This record gives sequence, structure tokens and C-alpha cells, in this order.
Amino acid sequence: MNIVIAPDSFKECLSAMEVAANIAIGVRKVMPAAIIHEIPISDGGEGVLEAIMAGAGGTRVSVSVLDPLKRQIKAEYGILNDNKTAVIEMAKASGLELLKEVEKNPLTTSTYGTGQLIKDALEKGCNKIIVGIGGSATNDGGAGMIRALGAKFLNDKGKEINEGGGSLNELHTIDLSNFDNKIQHCEVVVACDVSNPLTGINGASMVYGGQKGGNKEDLKLLDRNLAHYAKIIKTTVGFDISDTPGAGAAGGTGAGLMAFLGGSLVNGIGLILETLKIEEYIKQADVVFTGEGKIDEQTLHGKTISGIAKMAKKHNVPVIVITGKIGDNIDGIYNIGVSAVYSIVNQPMELKEAIRQAPKLIQDCAKNIMSTIICFN
Amino acid sequence: MNIVIAPDSFKECLSAMEVAANIAIGVRKVMPAAIIHEIPISDGGEGVLEAIMAGAGGTRVSVSVLDPLKRQIKAEYGILNDNKTAVIEMAKASGLELLKEVEKNPLTTSTYGTGQLIKDALEKGCNKIIVGIGGSATNDGGAGMIRALGAKFLNDKGKEINEGGGSLNELHTIDLSNFDNKIQHCEVVVACDVSNPLTGINGASMVYGGQKGGNKEDLKLLDRNLAHYAKIIKTTVGFDISDTPGAGAAGGTGAGLMAFLGGSLVNGIGLILETLKIEEYIKQADVVFTGEGKIDEQTLHGKTISGIAKMAKKHNVPVIVITGKIGDNIDGIYNIGVSAVYSIVNQPMELKEAIRQAPKLIQDCAKNIMSTIICFN
Repeated sequence: MNIVIAPDSFKECLSAMEVAANIAIGVRKVMPAAIIHEIPISDGGEGVLEAIMAGAGGTRVSVSVLDPLKRQIKAEYGILNDNKTAVIEMAKASGLELLKEVEKNPLTTSTYGTGQLIKDALEKGCNKIIVGIGGSATNDGGAGMIRALGAKFLNDKGKEINEGGGSLNELHTIDLSNFDNKIQHCEVVVACDVSNPLTGINGASMVYGGQKGGNKEDLKLLDRNLAHYAKIIKTTVGFDISDTPGAGAAGGTGAGLMAFLGGSLVNGIGLILETLKIEEYIKQADVVFTGEGKIDEQTLHGKTISGIAKMAKKHNVPVIVITGKIGDNIDGIYNIGVSAVYSIVNQPMELKEAIRQAPKLIQDCAKNIMSTIICFN
Repeated sequence: MNIVIAPDSFKECLSAMEVAANIAIGVRKVMPAAIIHEIPISDGGEGVLEAIMAGAGGTRVSVSVLDPLKRQIKAEYGILNDNKTAVIEMAKASGLELLKEVEKNPLTTSTYGTGQLIKDALEKGCNKIIVGIGGSATNDGGAGMIRALGAKFLNDKGKEINEGGGSLNELHTIDLSNFDNKIQHCEVVVACDVSNPLTGINGASMVYGGQKGGNKEDLKLLDRNLAHYAKIIKTTVGFDISDTPGAGAAGGTGAGLMAFLGGSLVNGIGLILETLKIEEYIKQADVVFTGEGKIDEQTLHGKTISGIAKMAKKHNVPVIVITGKIGDNIDGIYNIGVSAVYSIVNQPMELKEAIRQAPKLIQDCAKNIMSTIICFN
């Protein structure tokens, strides 16, 4: 029997990898010789880097880069086992997680470090770069990133302007003569779950600038600066980015990736499922186990389980969901391709007890389901 | 698909019949056209009458009889749909449940009413009588029952002795000349889960006499009287009942049933399963659902589930157990023929909540299992 085990994490309980491992233990108790593919899935909450590395494996590379305030730090990215695909989590080099609260400042923070990670991947021969752009500390339209790859951001006197979105009003010309041309032969895929435009009321600055430390005046300035930046982009690459959905993601990094790196934006879970080649495994499987900590109406609109289920439905493969809690009104889940939903809770108990015993409960649950399946297979 | 649903009750929650009905509702949600046999099983805790009537159906007959203290009462027994098989619960006519605490007295209580129920069944043409003998208030060796069927219990002066085990020392002769001869053509099967002999340290009086209201002296007297009774039985019917296992059941009613009615003793659950023709249904089934409120190590030594599972194993039919609580160390259950054990609890919750929601939880659980099964069938 060919079995795919592709769960999300059980939040505040077990990682997706741990959930998958325990399901596999339960399955093996019934069917020691089963062909099992454990592909833990993360819906992007922990970032594409962790999600893809957990599911696909590969090598982690540590690089010295500049953080959003241009301090030297070590940042990791991943190279998959094909040695050609890099997975870069922008937040590792340019994320809010790197700054103290008082250091947040969208006027000056730069995406330079993210560009350095991309440059490193290009130098190591990667021809596909996956970029996750959640959690950035920046509002520079990806300018720092582009500059790290060799672009020069010049003012009307031909001098390089300062980094940070607050200085983009001074931008007059983008000089791409030294731009890293390895990018021409590299596919750039951007995991992006927002569709904000670069500017305006729904734009990068107005919607996300505040959480990056900007006050009202800062946001207006940043918004104007990105609008100016969009004009310069248009004169530079002939491409009007101002209304493109997703251009406003990550302080405009979406715009920079699309305009200068030929990046295409795809939703995070789709990218993860594709990168992990889930569909190839699923279409050969006899059954798919997935799951998350809690199943409720949100699951239908959620990412991992509905993504897996739709894919499995396409190939007529049964999907069994294992969860900690089955909420009300989940009937819709049966329509999107889920065959059955089982709770690991095996008797009346408190939440903390269920969490404490979760590994064993998951094993027992999977064992029971497999025991049932083999009777009818 | 042919499905047998044969659960025990969920104690303090739902009757076996209610459990079966809710499992059936869940099954039908997935497979509306399934052939479903609902056969609720009771392990005898509620008595064979209730167990068999719930599972097999039939008619209840109400008869005026004498209670253990020879007061007129109404007592019920059942006649199955074949109109030939009666199911008599001794406790209905001669049970402790009919007496107040102060009325208990094993010296005087009589099984006469039980004999009247048997007589009624014979008169209605029954040729098979199933007698459940749990919960009796008596210690008369079934003497009252035999007398109700026409036997005369005479002292050495040829006069009828008083009823009750306390008077059996006066017994000299049992006159069977007016004994109801319809019993000759009637099979008597006794549901009996104890194997106590009639007398001695493990006998009827010493082991059970106390709970029927006897003090130490009473018990000694009763024990001596039953030993004397056994001798008279031997001279009357030529059959030494004194060492026969089960003769001591129900204050010696076991002895009376075996010696005078040709009764054979069988264990309660075996009798129930046989009477309900469970095996005939199981051997044609694609899957059997059973269950009880709690599954633990005791279940292995218990009655309903292990009985069902062994039978299903013989015919290679998968058995799915639905329960409220899965205890520890239940691995042995998989060896006796159970394929899988599912808890109805679908998230961390308190016992009282699980009990309150039990009907819906059972339905959902059965629905999920059936959804899984049909994917692989």
C-alpha cells in the first residue's frame, strides 16, 4: 500500500513533522511494509523556508548579510537536493524579527540583505529561487535587494541615494549596467498571500507601514515615495508596476521582484505543494493522511487541508483527516475531497491532557484507521 | 452492503437499543441503501428478558402470580415471534427487587411465582422456555417453582410442608403424580453465569444467602436443608444434583430446573447471542459494529464485545468497536477479532458533555467510519 502522510502542524502541540512521524508510526503498526511518504506541510505560518525544507529536505546555507539596519548578521537560506533550487525567506535577512521595537523604522530599513541571499544563491549556481516575503521590516520597494544585486539608485546629480523607503523621493535614475546578469537565467517564484497594490489606500505603506514602525506622516511620505519609485521603474524597465496585485507585498518588495527579477507571485501553499511535488505522490497513493490541530469551518477556507483534499479528489484518492478537535458545521469538508475526519481524543479529557498525550493518541488513531482500511482493501 | 449493528449499552448514557439506532443513523448518512441489522445486545446486566426482547422482538405477556412472599402481583414474560419460545426472567416474579429491605427472608421466600410464569408459557403452547435466574430473593432450591407446576412437597405425615428454604428439612417425599407433563415436551434453557454447587462453602446459601437477608444461623440452616433436599431429589428422580455446577444458582433454583424440568444451564451472553441468531446475521455481514461505554482490559474478559468479536472472527467479518472511552492496554482486543476501536469523543471535553452529546457523537463517529470503509470497499 502506498500512503502519503501530509499533515499541517497541530498548533501549540506538535510540528507538522512530528504529526507526520506519529501518524507513520501508527500506520506501520498495522502495515509494517507500507510505502509511506511523509510530507509535512506548513501553510506558510512558519514561512516557506521551514515548510519546504521540512517537506523536501536539502542543505541550509548560512551567509553573512546586512540586516534591515545594515548591521552584519548571519542569515540562512536553503538549497534543495537538486542543487539548483534556492529557498529564501526574506524575513531571515530583512525581517521585523531582527529588530527591537525601538529600532523599527520603515523610512530607513532596507531589503539589502535579501538581495545578498539571492546573490549568494545565484553564485552557487541556482537557477530557480523561491522567495518567501512574509514578515519584512521594510518599506523600500525592494530597492535595497535590487542594489545588492548590482543596481545603482542615483539622484538627479548621479549620486547614490540613501537606502530605505524614506529616501526614494530622491531617486532619479536606476542604473542597471552592473546588475547581476545571472538573474536572466534564473526563475524567481515569490510565495505571496496578499494582493495589495504598491501604493494608495490599500498599498504597502498605508496597510503595513504602521506595524513596521511608521507614523501617519511617515506612511504618507512612504506612499508618495513608492509612487515616485513606480514611475522610475516604468522609465527604467518599461513596466508599470503601480496597479499590479501583490506589488505592495512586503513593503513593495513584490514590485521589486516582479520588475527587476522577473518574479512571478504565487500563493504560498500552492508553491509549497508544488515544490514538494505533493501531487506526484498523491496520484500514486492509495490513501492520503492529512490533519491539523483543529477542524472547523475555517478549514474549508484554510490552506493545507483544502489544498491537499482538492488535489487528492482530482486523482480519486481518499483523504483521511486526523485532528485534535472536530468543530461544528464541518460538513462542507466532505465536499472538497475529505473522506473522513477523526479526532485523536480517545475519551473525555482536558485539552492539556490531549496535548500531553498527543503523540500516542495520533499513533493510536492512525493505527485504528489503518486497521479499518485493511479490512476492506 | 450488509451491516450488523450489535452494541451493548453505554452505561449511564444510552441503552443498547439507542446506541444501535444512532450508529445506524450515522451509517445511513453515508450509505442510505445499506442492509442494516440492528441487534442491541445486553450482557445480562439488565436480564435476558430485556436483552432478548430488545434484540429479537416479540410479545410481552402479563400474568398474575405470587411474589416471593406469596402476594398477588403482575409479572411479565416474553414470547418470541415464533410463538413457541418463552423468555422468563425469574426476578420478575421471585426477585429481590420485589421486596423491601425488611421483607427479605430466605427462610420463607418462594420461587412459586416463577413456576406460575413457566406454567403460563406451557399453557400458551411454548415448547422452549428460556429462564434467566439472576436477582432471586429465594433460597428454596426452586421448590416453590416445582410446586406451582403440580408437584407436592410432603412431610413424613403426607402433609404439604410450608414454602421457603427454611422448611425443606421437613421434606420427606416429592409427589410428582400431578406434575405438569407438558414440560416433557418442552426444552428448558437456563441463562446462568455462576457455577456454584447447591451446598457447602461455595453453595447457594453460604455465598448468596446473606444478600437475601439471612443471618449466619439462617445460612447454616438453609445449607443443611438444601443438602437434605438434594437427597430427596435423588430418591425422587434418581439424579444426584448435589455436586452439579450451577445447581446453587438463584438459591438452588438451578437445581430445581435441572432435576425436574430437564433444564440445561448455559452462559447468559451465549444464550442471548444464540437466541438472537447473531451468528446467522454476522456470517452474512460485510462489517459488524459493536460497542460499549468504555473499552478497557475488562472488555477482553467481558461478554458482549468479546462474544461478538469471536463469532465474527470465525467468519472473517471485520468488527468495528465504537465507545465513549478507550482505556489503556487494550491491545489484546485486536487478537480476539476486533479490527478497530473508535471513541465518539471528538475533542477535549468533560464526561458529562460527552454523555449529553452522545447520540450525535455516535452518529458522527459511525458516519466517519463508513465514509472510510466505502473508500476502500
